Amino acid sequence: MTGKMTRRSMFGLAGAAATGVAAGVLGDRFIDSSTPEPGDATAESVPFHGPQQAGIVTAAQDRMHFVAFDVTTKDRRELASLLLDWTDAARRMIEGMEAADKGAVGGHPDAPPADTGEALGLPASALTLTVGFGPSLFDSRFGLADKRPPALIDLPLFPADALDPRRSGGDICVQACANDPQVAVHAIRNLARIGFGKVAVRWSQLGFGRTSSTSRTQATPRNLFGFKDGTRNIKAEDVQSLRDHVWVAPGDGPDWMTGGTYLVARRIRMHIEIWDRTSLSEQEQIVGRSKGVGAPLGQVDEFDEPDLHVRGAGGLPVIADDSHIRLASAESLNGVKILRRGYNFTDGTDGLGHLDAGLFFIGFNRDTRTQFVPMQHALSGTDKMMEYLQHNGSGHFAIPPGVSKNGYWGDALLA
Amino acid sequence: MTGKMTRRSMFGLAGAAATGVAAGVLGDRFIDSSTPEPGDATAESVPFHGPQQAGIVTAAQDRMHFVAFDVTTKDRRELASLLLDWTDAARRMIEGMEAADKGAVGGHPDAPPADTGEALGLPASALTLTVGFGPSLFDSRFGLADKRPPALIDLPLFPADALDPRRSGGDICVQACANDPQVAVHAIRNLARIGFGKVAVRWSQLGFGRTSSTSRTQATPRNLFGFKDGTRNIKAEDVQSLRDHVWVAPGDGPDWMTGGTYLVARRIRMHIEIWDRTSLSEQEQIVGRSKGVGAPLGQVDEFDEPDLHVRGAGGLPVIADDSHIRLASAESLNGVKILRRGYNFTDGTDGLGHLDAGLFFIGFNRDTRTQFVPMQHALSGTDKMMEYLQHNGSGHFAIPPGVSKNGYWGDALLA
Repeated sequence: MTGKMTRRSMFGLAGAAATGVAAGVLGDRFIDSSTPEPGDATAESVPFHGPQQAGIVTAAQDRMHFVAFDVTTKDRRELASLLLDWTDAARRMIEGMEAADKGAVGGHPDAPPADTGEALGLPASALTLTVGFGPSLFDSRFGLADKRPPALIDLPLFPADALDPRRSGGDICVQACANDPQVAVHAIRNLARIGFGKVAVRWSQLGFGRTSSTSRTQATPRNLFGFKDGTRNIKAEDVQSLRDHVWVAPGDGPDWMTGGTYLVARRIRMHIEIWDRTSLSEQEQIVGRSKGVGAPLGQVDEFDEPDLHVRGAGGLPVIADDSHIRLASAESLNGVKILRRGYNFTDGTDGLGHLDAGLFFIGFNRDTRTQFVPMQHALSGTDKMMEYLQHNGSGHFAIPPGVSKNGYWGDALLA
Repeated sequence: MTGKMTRRSMFGLAGAAATGVAAGVLGDRFIDSSTPEPGDATAESVPFHGPQQAGIVTAAQDRMHFVAFDVTTKDRRELASLLLDWTDAARRMIEGMEAADKGAVGGHPDAPPADTGEALGLPASALTLTVGFGPSLFDSRFGLADKRPPALIDLPLFPADALDPRRSGGDICVQACANDPQVAVHAIRNLARIGFGKVAVRWSQLGFGRTSSTSRTQATPRNLFGFKDGTRNIKAEDVQSLRDHVWVAPGDGPDWMTGGTYLVARRIRMHIEIWDRTSLSEQEQIVGRSKGVGAPLGQVDEFDEPDLHVRGAGGLPVIADDSHIRLASAESLNGVKILRRGYNFTDGTDGLGHLDAGLFFIGFNRDTRTQFVPMQHALSGTDKMMEYLQHNGSGHFAIPPGVSKNGYWGDALLA
């Protein structure tokens, strides 16, 4: 991690080369005099290159901006060129630099700025950018149909789905996670800007608080039901579980996906007003954990293993048959696990006197057909929690492996 | 500042009194075992009581959740009782505690929890809650018509307004600011929960990044045009300016407002995609400042005074006649100033391929008729920046003075 690099220092360097004419009008465009931020681990940079993309097992950052694009160009070379341009900009932005090293596009004083500027002076903030390709990218437009991975299915409709097409689908997704939301929004906005004329924003979602830990170094956060979420999540340290359940292995599908994974996004509205009028004991029965500590019912500590067999008063299971942690457990799903990386959201109101709030679910798995789909079928049909949930957005994306120092996102697919 | 108080410690204290029966099911509801957060100035608590409400000159926190409620009860006593209950909950939440000191409403095990739980383990995070009353509260329902302050006008329609009634108005507003968005959302959500059956959410807005400084201790942040915003804002240290321009003085209006102020909220969509295709020099001409340093055109440093008289090549003013900082300056507005406290927002998409992003403007002034209204008339009609802006939400609220130790929000109005 470089840690100390900020956009401020980059602009300072460039500023030394600025000429003096019209100083104060244009001459200081590269200089930013913000006060330096204090040392802060959450401000450091996350390496971009590697066998896998960052933003999957990276310790989940606090804030997120997720976007799905429609590709509007019909030219495959232009698409590849855009992904190359995005990769170059990403390499800079994750280091805390501006999207390009020139003050204006092409270096011309009368051209638009090559960066939108709202992250000037802000540190890297552990920004990660993770790119994926939706099923629709493999239609007839770009000659990619025969490269579509069989695992990149059109997701089935689940029993309780109420999907809004304006919050679903997309040819390309970008997940931006950072510890400063302005840094995440800045990154998505600059990718959209660079893509003008080639892509259009289909939908986007801000998440204000992480609901998963992806590292044993992190405390478990809480979702908007007030419960700790993701206690049993796969963590970065679980190398064997990642191999078994997250990373695409050779032979799993087309070669270009080896080392990648599949991302499922679900916008899950929570009917928090109804939940808030449910008794504490019923809430705990529905989840299968205590609200305070987050311990499995019948246990003492959060990380105690749930005992799915123990019975309490009246011979009933202490962890109810229709409780969330039972139905979502690997034990109930023939060993299926996924890596979750979701975020709480609140998007104004629903027009009916309630907050439009919930959980933006992001899950990574090695094969959506055998992991997310059976899990969601089990939960959607039986989980008592579904009474308080509504899935109204959905996306499925193939996440290619990591980028090499001379490569770009999706190069093995598009080259 | 108490600094060290967290919800974790409160629940820990109560946990010592919990009985052992059904332990693990219900017995640990008061205990939270999250790892303690490191010492952090942004995590401390802000005093609640005082001559003015917190959240106005309080050093602007990083995140915001703003809500406007419709009052649905027709009973004035019930309204007063709700404001009392809200004040009690606020006193606790701003200290980092849960909304009530009982595990469940009324302390009954089968009652709903008395707090929704998602902020368990999180520190106070400098949470402030600021309450105001809209013009509609002074209609015939509660017998308050003769207490309506003359300054609490129905805002006029400005030239470029495109107001959405679903983002405008409201009987009561609450501005929650905090350095952790989950803490701000938690506070609004719990006030909505406590108000069930008496108020309904009319609209709400999340702001992910502050666009103003309200203290000389803070660096100036950037708006989504990429420019530093609020350099010349009134700051907490400017006691005389606050007296002249922000706080309602005796005789300004009804007694119950003395020591209060008026809040104007405007949801300002920014057409960032068009802005991003504008040249750097044009952007700087429109704003009247350099983008990097944020210096007034013709000057060197951010805090240099703008020189509105100096002329450059061709005899044209260096700070253009239709530039934002000229039109918004006290010099151009007969000395008018307001205290700004806005936030950047991004709310998904507009359905046309663009991000729905902008600035949620919050301004405080002593008399909206003579401050915000003439300022906005000048800007709305002449400001070149308006080509890139659309005001699509609006609210106006009377912010009563601060709460005493035995008082509640609005007690002087409702008692």
